[in-house]
Amino acid sequence: MPFDGSLLQHHTSRTITHVMVIPKNMQGLVLLHDGFDATGRATGLEDFSDCVELRQLSVPQHGPGQALIRVSRAAVNHADVAFIRGYYGMPRVKGVAAGFEGTGTVVAGDTPLVGQRVSFASPTSGTWAEYALANIAQLIPLRDELRDEDAAGLIINPISAAVMCEIARESGAKSFVATGAGSQLVKFLIPLAREKGCPCIAIVRRPALAQQLKDLGALEVLVSEDAEFAERFRSVSLRYKPRVLLDAIADQVSSDIFFAMPNHSIWVIYGRLAISLPVLNDPEQFIVANKQIKGFWLTSWFLNTAPEEVAKVIADVQARFIDGRWQTNVSETVALQDAMSLLPSAFSQKDGKVLLAL
Amino acid sequence: MPFDGSLLQHHTSRTITHVMVIPKNMQGLVLLHDGFDATGRATGLEDFSDCVELRQLSVPQHGPGQALIRVSRAAVNHADVAFIRGYYGMPRVKGVAAGFEGTGTVVAGDTPLVGQRVSFASPTSGTWAEYALANIAQLIPLRDELRDEDAAGLIINPISAAVMCEIARESGAKSFVATGAGSQLVKFLIPLAREKGCPCIAIVRRPALAQQLKDLGALEVLVSEDAEFAERFRSVSLRYKPRVLLDAIADQVSSDIFFAMPNHSIWVIYGRLAISLPVLNDPEQFIVANKQIKGFWLTSWFLNTAPEEVAKVIADVQARFIDGRWQTNVSETVALQDAMSLLPSAFSQKDGKVLLAL
Repeated sequence: MPFDGSLLQHHTSRTITHVMVIPKNMQGLVLLHDGFDATGRATGLEDFSDCVELRQLSVPQHGPGQALIRVSRAAVNHADVAFIRGYYGMPRVKGVAAGFEGTGTVVAGDTPLVGQRVSFASPTSGTWAEYALANIAQLIPLRDELRDEDAAGLIINPISAAVMCEIARESGAKSFVATGAGSQLVKFLIPLAREKGCPCIAIVRRPALAQQLKDLGALEVLVSEDAEFAERFRSVSLRYKPRVLLDAIADQVSSDIFFAMPNHSIWVIYGRLAISLPVLNDPEQFIVANKQIKGFWLTSWFLNTAPEEVAKVIADVQARFIDGRWQTNVSETVALQDAMSLLPSAFSQKDGKVLLAL
Repeated sequence: MPFDGSLLQHHTSRTITHVMVIPKNMQGLVLLHDGFDATGRATGLEDFSDCVELRQLSVPQHGPGQALIRVSRAAVNHADVAFIRGYYGMPRVKGVAAGFEGTGTVVAGDTPLVGQRVSFASPTSGTWAEYALANIAQLIPLRDELRDEDAAGLIINPISAAVMCEIARESGAKSFVATGAGSQLVKFLIPLAREKGCPCIAIVRRPALAQQLKDLGALEVLVSEDAEFAERFRSVSLRYKPRVLLDAIADQVSSDIFFAMPNHSIWVIYGRLAISLPVLNDPEQFIVANKQIKGFWLTSWFLNTAPEEVAKVIADVQARFIDGRWQTNVSETVALQDAMSLLPSAFSQKDGKVLLAL
């Protein structure tokens, strides 16, 4: 039966045929540390095998307003790895499973979505385990046509791309700049921004990605490690006059780009992949050139956005995957049992999204 | 006759008794360089004797919409000295007099204010000369009770203080932080902010100023060169939870303060007295702590604020000087003829406002 938009009916037809057996224990990748990494950020994100462990743990109990989900696929995002290492904006809780988002089937909870396939974010338990909790109000029921590969990472990268595309468009400029453009997030952003008439000037470290990003719809692709990068960026910036820098890295290259951009430019930091810290080259520009630095955090966006608007963005994200305008570029799907040996190296390849199969 | 609010009547009664004789030439402190200082910012602001020269030059001709003013007193602000040295956000024009603001008598122009004492900013000629041009629409007619010492610097510091006090209050916090708190601007800001219920945590380099700023109404005064400054600031910040940093310096101390402030804090850079460049200690805070950096430039404020609002702020500024709530703390008044020998050392004393008498 194809999904017809009526959640309740769909649910009813399914729950009749499903018997949910929930075990007491499960396997999961469990956090080994509490709080933040007090040593400061001395290493990159690639190595996280000393921060999680594959372990048996209790299946979490759902409380009021919560649903329990049997996870099928979970995304491995930069935010996850930053969190595991203690570099993210939330304290770790030792003994709890890692993983911010995934897809699976609702198996318990006071919701008509029991039995349904959903995408979800898990704020209190983690998606890198066979079972995870989610807030019922934030479950995303999925259309049948949506592939599991796209459903696993439906929230963090796609919604960030959709929201940040609007931030770029609101600048009034006809283009914007994005660093770390080889990421899945920017690969979603590039065609979307092109479609909306505000194409992306993509900054990458490795020249290998340039053609792929051009094909996706990037206005220009510049390689930050090129000897003439500064010169090239200046000329592109003069030509297209972008006013927003969407930045996942926050290093000196980002700072140099920002200070080379036109008056009224805003440096929007949404990730911090760099270990080194940026210097502000020309503080005068905040004054006389009306420049600004701010951040973007999807968590804040969810907290500060009306539910109807959130629902609209989510519906559009699903539609884009289903009609093929977007496609998650999965480089590797690692089984939970193999995660400790395979996940760090799969993640460090950086050529596509890594998923965990549960 | 006391000023009665009717400009035209006042003007008429005066112009009858004034005969304006305008000479062809005048004395002024003239810019020796064009554009910006291409060498970058290698020195401080104190030394500017190689950038201006006392010279005879033509009295400027007023065009449509302009008035000519016989300058009596001009302020010597940090912005002037940054400009003279080529560090300010506007290119210098060689051969033109320096000086952004002053007071004097309107001697020519298509305005009922001819014959009147005004405060004014001079965007095209400079106030460090016997005559200067101003836009008629921006002349500030002065109440008779206003002292010349206060009138000379009525615009840049007082209006900046008034506008930035509102920026601090709009943060919703019950206090804010200001660096460079020994400046005339912050000395205006401190009592105003106290009066408005959002007192200032004042940061100074020299302990000598602490008592004076306390007496003016500062909530706390912290000395940035103290060994325990970081610790003290953290504790004050935890206690009072300020959310705005009004910063005239933009050095590492400013950055450290910003990153030690609570979530949602905004670093407002309005001056850049430092030579060294700040490092962003913790870019993650832009994301998860919703921090921001922006600038404040009075020039932009004038361009983007409704004339009625500007007039209201100016009227309030005059009233504050006249009723004694504000008083310009003049350390030295230097005659134009002595300026080349006395001005740089007077300016570098930093214990009060330096005026130029023309």
